[in-house]
Amino acid sequence: MEPIEIHLLQDLDLRGSTLIDGFPSVGLVSSIVANYLVGALELDQVGIIDSPFFPSVALVKDGIPLNPVRIYAGGPPERRVVVFISEFQPPADVVKTVAEGVLAWAMERGCSLLVAPEGLIVDAQALKEEIRVFGIGSTPKAHAMLRDHGIPIFEEGVITGVAGVLLNEGRKRSFDVISLLSEAHPDYPDARAAARVIETVDRLLLNMNLDTEPLYQEAGRIEEELRNIHRTTEAVQQPEGPSRPSMYG
Amino acid sequence: MEPIEIHLLQDLDLRGSTLIDGFPSVGLVSSIVANYLVGALELDQVGIIDSPFFPSVALVKDGIPLNPVRIYAGGPPERRVVVFISEFQPPADVVKTVAEGVLAWAMERGCSLLVAPEGLIVDAQALKEEIRVFGIGSTPKAHAMLRDHGIPIFEEGVITGVAGVLLNEGRKRSFDVISLLSEAHPDYPDARAAARVIETVDRLLLNMNLDTEPLYQEAGRIEEELRNIHRTTEAVQQPEGPSRPSMYG
Amino acid sequence: MEPIEIHLLQDLDLRGSTLIDGFPSVGLVSSIVANYLVGALELDQVGIIDSPFFPSVALVKDGIPLNPVRIYAGGPPERRVVVFISEFQPPADVVKTVAEGVLAWAMERGCSLLVAPEGLIVDAQALKEEIRVFGIGSTPKAHAMLRDHGIPIFEEGVITGVAGVLLNEGRKRSFDVISLLSEAHPDYPDARAAARVIETVDRLLLNMNLDTEPLYQEAGRIEEELRNIHRTTEAVQQPEGPSRPSMYG
Amino acid sequence: MEPIEIHLLQDLDLRGSTLIDGFPSVGLVSSIVANYLVGALELDQVGIIDSPFFPSVALVKDGIPLNPVRIYAGGPPERRVVVFISEFQPPADVVKTVAEGVLAWAMERGCSLLVAPEGLIVDAQALKEEIRVFGIGSTPKAHAMLRDHGIPIFEEGVITGVAGVLLNEGRKRSFDVISLLSEAHPDYPDARAAARVIETVDRLLLNMNLDTEPLYQEAGRIEEELRNIHRTTEAVQQPEGPSRPSMYG
Amino acid sequence: MEPIEIHLLQDLDLRGSTLIDGFPSVGLVSSIVANYLVGALELDQVGIIDSPFFPSVALVKDGIPLNPVRIYAGGPPERRVVVFISEFQPPADVVKTVAEGVLAWAMERGCSLLVAPEGLIVDAQALKEEIRVFGIGSTPKAHAMLRDHGIPIFEEGVITGVAGVLLNEGRKRSFDVISLLSEAHPDYPDARAAARVIETVDRLLLNMNLDTEPLYQEAGRIEEELRNIHRTTEAVQQPEGPSRPSMYG
Repeated sequence: MEPIEIHLLQDLDLRGSTLIDGFPSVGLVSSIVANYLVGALELDQVGIIDSPFFPSVALVKDGIPLNPVRIYAGGPPERRVVVFISEFQPPADVVKTVAEGVLAWAMERGCSLLVAPEGLIVDAQALKEEIRVFGIGSTPKAHAMLRDHGIPIFEEGVITGVAGVLLNEGRKRSFDVISLLSEAHPDYPDARAAARVIETVDRLLLNMNLDTEPLYQEAGRIEEELRNIHRTTEAVQQPEGPSRPSMYG
Repeated sequence: MEPIEIHLLQDLDLRGSTLIDGFPSVGLVSSIVANYLVGALELDQVGIIDSPFFPSVALVKDGIPLNPVRIYAGGPPERRVVVFISEFQPPADVVKTVAEGVLAWAMERGCSLLVAPEGLIVDAQALKEEIRVFGIGSTPKAHAMLRDHGIPIFEEGVITGVAGVLLNEGRKRSFDVISLLSEAHPDYPDARAAARVIETVDRLLLNMNLDTEPLYQEAGRIEEELRNIHRTTEAVQQPEGPSRPSMYG
Repeated sequence: MEPIEIHLLQDLDLRGSTLIDGFPSVGLVSSIVANYLVGALELDQVGIIDSPFFPSVALVKDGIPLNPVRIYAGGPPERRVVVFISEFQPPADVVKTVAEGVLAWAMERGCSLLVAPEGLIVDAQALKEEIRVFGIGSTPKAHAMLRDHGIPIFEEGVITGVAGVLLNEGRKRSFDVISLLSEAHPDYPDARAAARVIETVDRLLLNMNLDTEPLYQEAGRIEEELRNIHRTTEAVQQPEGPSRPSMYG
Repeated sequence: MEPIEIHLLQDLDLRGSTLIDGFPSVGLVSSIVANYLVGALELDQVGIIDSPFFPSVALVKDGIPLNPVRIYAGGPPERRVVVFISEFQPPADVVKTVAEGVLAWAMERGCSLLVAPEGLIVDAQALKEEIRVFGIGSTPKAHAMLRDHGIPIFEEGVITGVAGVLLNEGRKRSFDVISLLSEAHPDYPDARAAARVIETVDRLLLNMNLDTEPLYQEAGRIEEELRNIHRTTEAVQQPEGPSRPSMYG
Repeated sequence: MEPIEIHLLQDLDLRGSTLIDGFPSVGLVSSIVANYLVGALELDQVGIIDSPFFPSVALVKDGIPLNPVRIYAGGPPERRVVVFISEFQPPADVVKTVAEGVLAWAMERGCSLLVAPEGLIVDAQALKEEIRVFGIGSTPKAHAMLRDHGIPIFEEGVITGVAGVLLNEGRKRSFDVISLLSEAHPDYPDARAAARVIETVDRLLLNMNLDTEPLYQEAGRIEEELRNIHRTTEAVQQPEGPSRPSMYG
């Protein structure tokens, strides 16, 4: 098997679409955003990403077995959205391969933009006040998009993981990548931080005037579900223990 | 050597047959089911699976040396059964290779269905009551089979190991895979849980009206034998110690 | 270099010969048997086995530097014997490669039988009584040989290491492999157990009516020598220490 | 991906230019020198170096995402300077690959000289006095350059890491490499040691009569910035922890 | 890069020459011998050996950067000597590759003999008396050389590391290899043991009637220098610490 293999369950025209990165980030901001968008935009699963480095596990939702990394797509052709969702964090030495593979695939498929939500660690005091969302782009065009929508620029710092590599690769290959960084608590899934990113994505891309109130509550539900999956998957990752499927429903 | 090599001792027509996965699972449910079926259906060993990642060990039964992973087959042509039996758990990083190899082989050989028994961890209280068996399928057709036979669907949860990968691969490649999950105790070979799966397999596939009573006792004997083999094999797995064959007969 | 390379120092016709496996086993039974036969049958070194996984060491005997794994051969053409001798235990993850390589080479060279001596761990009480030797074969023909010579069959158990893989491969490839298992003490070189195997090999193959009495004493001398080599080689295996040749003569 | 890949963002004629190695060294002397020169000579980023062995991280400066290893170039054609800057230390087993790749690239591109600043550990007493800078070259021509500019030769010792390999490779391939070794404190970024190297580089190559006073203060600012980046990056290198972007601006 | 690469700085006719192995051995006997011969015979550096497994370090002597493994050659054509010098011990799993590469190169280049000095560990009492030097050869011709010069044969024992593999390879490929084993103290560079080997090499090959007295003193100086280099290089080998060049001159 290739180090990473992106497999569509059906053929799709993804030209001009926006890709949302849902690999786990600080505060699981990206995961919550990605899961929320799949539900709110009623996206369908259209593919999977597989790799020998991904865990040997099927997630079961609504009686359907799911790969741990999946691709969803949908929405009207003029603003089609493609979402990558992963229930687990790729091992540190696979992050570059995964992120480069995703960006290369986005370019081959003719996608026009890639958005990577991220959590931004700030001290506890800062989190009591209003959560700020910053943006950073890989190209002058991506920066212009941020400025045009009044999103403050993330000026100095370090972005690690999938989002960091996506920005580097986007700059290297002149592909528009935007990372949206929301002030988040690093120790648990931070639904409030994710909700702020969803609002920003709405303003930047969707213009659907998503109702913010239920969004905050919905985000809370996703937070709980991700917490459950992560607890189970962590047990799985321990190499020596026996396989332990468990049941929630 | 290839990462995994499936080798038939003789040429066989396996078109239309059902493959039963007997790689160890929670409560060794799959192992007990697989061993029981080999005896009850009087299946013959027809092949082996080998891999550089499998242990260097010959099991001896009735004076015959056996590979640690073997293929058995038999039954009338219209409902031929193929059983994969492994006395040991593949290392975590080989599970995907093994499961994908098994499914690819099943498709090449024209098998029509793959059944993967699994144990489902529940709390101690639940085990005192009647053991429930749930099913999940990789395709709409597999789901229809479950519904038609009144087997409740496993709606939400996580399935790890060989069974999980078989479900994912079956969905990806549109091959019918059914996992039967029986509530089991994870800490020892659970013959009662296995017996319930055997009843379900009988109802779903064999229609042989297997006598349940001796089945529970027979399952107990298999449980004891597997416990012995596992105790010996664990000693073997310790990398630094000298080879220690031992004798029971 | 190949993972394992079998190199003959001169060209030899080995068709019809019997190969004796002398890789270390429980109680070093196989090593003692192999070394005894080289002396008693006055075999010559005819080749070496090399592998990047074998230790970087030359054994010196009688002023001649020797590879740690060597091939000896000799005897009259109608009952020619080939012996593989290794002064060290292959690492666990190389055992399969070594054993499969040896068997493939035996088949290519037209050998007709491979005999793998092994020690069989029994409890201390059993060792006080007469030592029993069991046999097991990879094929019906090998089993018939054992029965014809009154050697009891090893009915149930687990055989690990080189002997286990040789039996599996022999069965897979329909090549006659016999393992002779002698009740042995696992914690030191067991010359008595080895002497019993030598008697059995004599009865089964050689018909040389080897004198048993000096054989037991000779076995004791070999035991002492192997103990010395193993002590030295163990020091060598410690990866960080400096090379430490030492001297006995 | 290749083990190391040097990628120019635009095509450039680098014939005759001098390459400055800015991979981290003792006291971060090379890093401070490289960063200072980028600012003082107003160099532009012209490329990146990527490798699967480099960390998955984007540095953000002035709102621009940057690869952790970058190439800057500029200056008048007759004394063009190319600077390699890395915010992190390559793992020990990649140092040779990185240094050999850099030198091969310099030769392919027609660069005429490679300068590698290094820190030279001396005892605390020595550091209280005036800091000495020594030079060593890979070729007679490089040595002549040092002598002609009155730079004392580093006669006896050991040079490790990127600078050591660059010297070896330069000697092997007859390419002019000069390492400038400045007496430095190994435990923190040593701006004073770096300032002395910058003065030497000025004398040797640039003849720009750089004002030394602000240079010492500027070096202090760079020291502080590098300390920040290293603190953050160290957190990143811990393999098991979650990704933690952080923010300074 | 190849696992091991032998690179000549200039083309040389080495037919008929004798190669001296200077990879570190017990008591650094080989290193001291090799360094002494380079000085006494006024040999020039003619090449390097490189490998991705060798340390990333340049040794500086007399202002010249040197690879950690080097080839020196010189002397009159009829008794030309080639010396391999390594300032560090190859990692255990590379020893075979290095030794086999050296021997293959010697055969390709038409060298006629390879001499590998070694230290022979004996108990403290033995070291108080006169140091004995033993010899062992890979071929009958090499043994005859030893006998003709009255060098006692090393009859029984174990020779590890580069010298052991050179003997094995020499025997396998019918190339004359002689190891000279001098009774040595394993815990420090043993100049006296090395001096005795040098006397033996003189008697065996050079017939230069080297003055023994200054040789013992010269050996002491080399001992001190090697001790220094090893102390520095050990610090380098610690993988996590920062690069620490240091200075002696």
